[in-house]
Amino acid sequence: MITVALAKGALLKDSVARFAAAGLDFSAVLDPDNRQLMVPSACGRARALLVRNGDVPVYVAYGQAQLGVVGYDVLREHQMPVAQLVDLGFGGCRMAVAVKASSGYQRATDLPPHCRVASKFTRCARDYFDAIDLPVELVHLTGSVELGPITGIAEAIVDLVATGRTLRDNGLVAIEDLFLTTARLVGHPLSLRLDQGDLRQIVEAMRSTTPVSKVTS
Amino acid sequence: MITVALAKGALLKDSVARFAAAGLDFSAVLDPDNRQLMVPSACGRARALLVRNGDVPVYVAYGQAQLGVVGYDVLREHQMPVAQLVDLGFGGCRMAVAVKASSGYQRATDLPPHCRVASKFTRCARDYFDAIDLPVELVHLTGSVELGPITGIAEAIVDLVATGRTLRDNGLVAIEDLFLTTARLVGHPLSLRLDQGDLRQIVEAMRSTTPVSKVTS
Repeated sequence: MITVALAKGALLKDSVARFAAAGLDFSAVLDPDNRQLMVPSACGRARALLVRNGDVPVYVAYGQAQLGVVGYDVLREHQMPVAQLVDLGFGGCRMAVAVKASSGYQRATDLPPHCRVASKFTRCARDYFDAIDLPVELVHLTGSVELGPITGIAEAIVDLVATGRTLRDNGLVAIEDLFLTTARLVGHPLSLRLDQGDLRQIVEAMRSTTPVSKVTS
Repeated sequence: MITVALAKGALLKDSVARFAAAGLDFSAVLDPDNRQLMVPSACGRARALLVRNGDVPVYVAYGQAQLGVVGYDVLREHQMPVAQLVDLGFGGCRMAVAVKASSGYQRATDLPPHCRVASKFTRCARDYFDAIDLPVELVHLTGSVELGPITGIAEAIVDLVATGRTLRDNGLVAIEDLFLTTARLVGHPLSLRLDQGDLRQIVEAMRSTTPVSKVTS
């Protein structure tokens, strides 16, 4: 039985569509009445685990799921030992540094040394500010990071930006991109090595259905 | 201006009721149409920050909110430097070790050494298993921890239990309590020391409206 870890939320619909194109129909997870977290595929030879974004690499790293779909941002932040197999191209957004539009800061290096930066992605933020050699104090928040500069808990934030609407609504502006992120197909390394062909077939099918123009890396 | 950090979710309604009894009307945050995360009180002398559970102690520790309401479980897990002022008595549940009902484990010490335990509260779990001298491997999950024993990623979980329904629905049973948790009024230590009486008045009013029978510690 193949188990696939799918992230609830923004990536779910496209993830299901891409597995369907590869022959695994998990459309039952999109039923608004579905309360189950473990859902069999229509063909019965696989099942989907419906988990939170950050838990996808955990289930795959421990081999409880052989495959999973999750954003590159989560992979960068959590650094779990999973194999990145395919850039699926959807769910594109960027990890960016944002500040109050009224602050006048034009780029990250304008930020005052030792200022506070709020983020859900403190590891990504730490790596970035280390790389540009700017010492900052990171404040880990778990949600609504755009409140940071408004309340004054932080001078800047590091957060995912898709359309930029949340930033605009809160008087913020992105001044620097850390990296682009898209959904990735990941796999459990040992399961891939021991695979008799079932996993490879799915991975190849998902790779071949990826629109080339959407692949960012 | 007094700023109060309130946790979205299960504690919100009671938190608003208790502040109302102390003279601060934040009922606007309960309006289902409310999209604002920073909401003034009806009297205009205070405002509420509507944030996630785990972020309440962060905003209070940094002094962006002088007061906040959050579960004792979050305080134990995050260990931020905030003053615990009043046990508000509501939001009661217990942090428990749970296993598959079919596992036969009767208590935490029955678990095999070096087994895996999944939890959102890995610091609480670590402290507990250290205290009973049982070495376990902790798997940090961010949601749906009850999936842990079902998928086999962990033999046991440490999670909050209110009615026990989620456990029952997933074939799990609680075998040990770590501690009881209720909502707590917390404060920013420096703001409390510099207070001219405004904060003390609210704290005293909230203390005096706490039903004695509900206080658990």
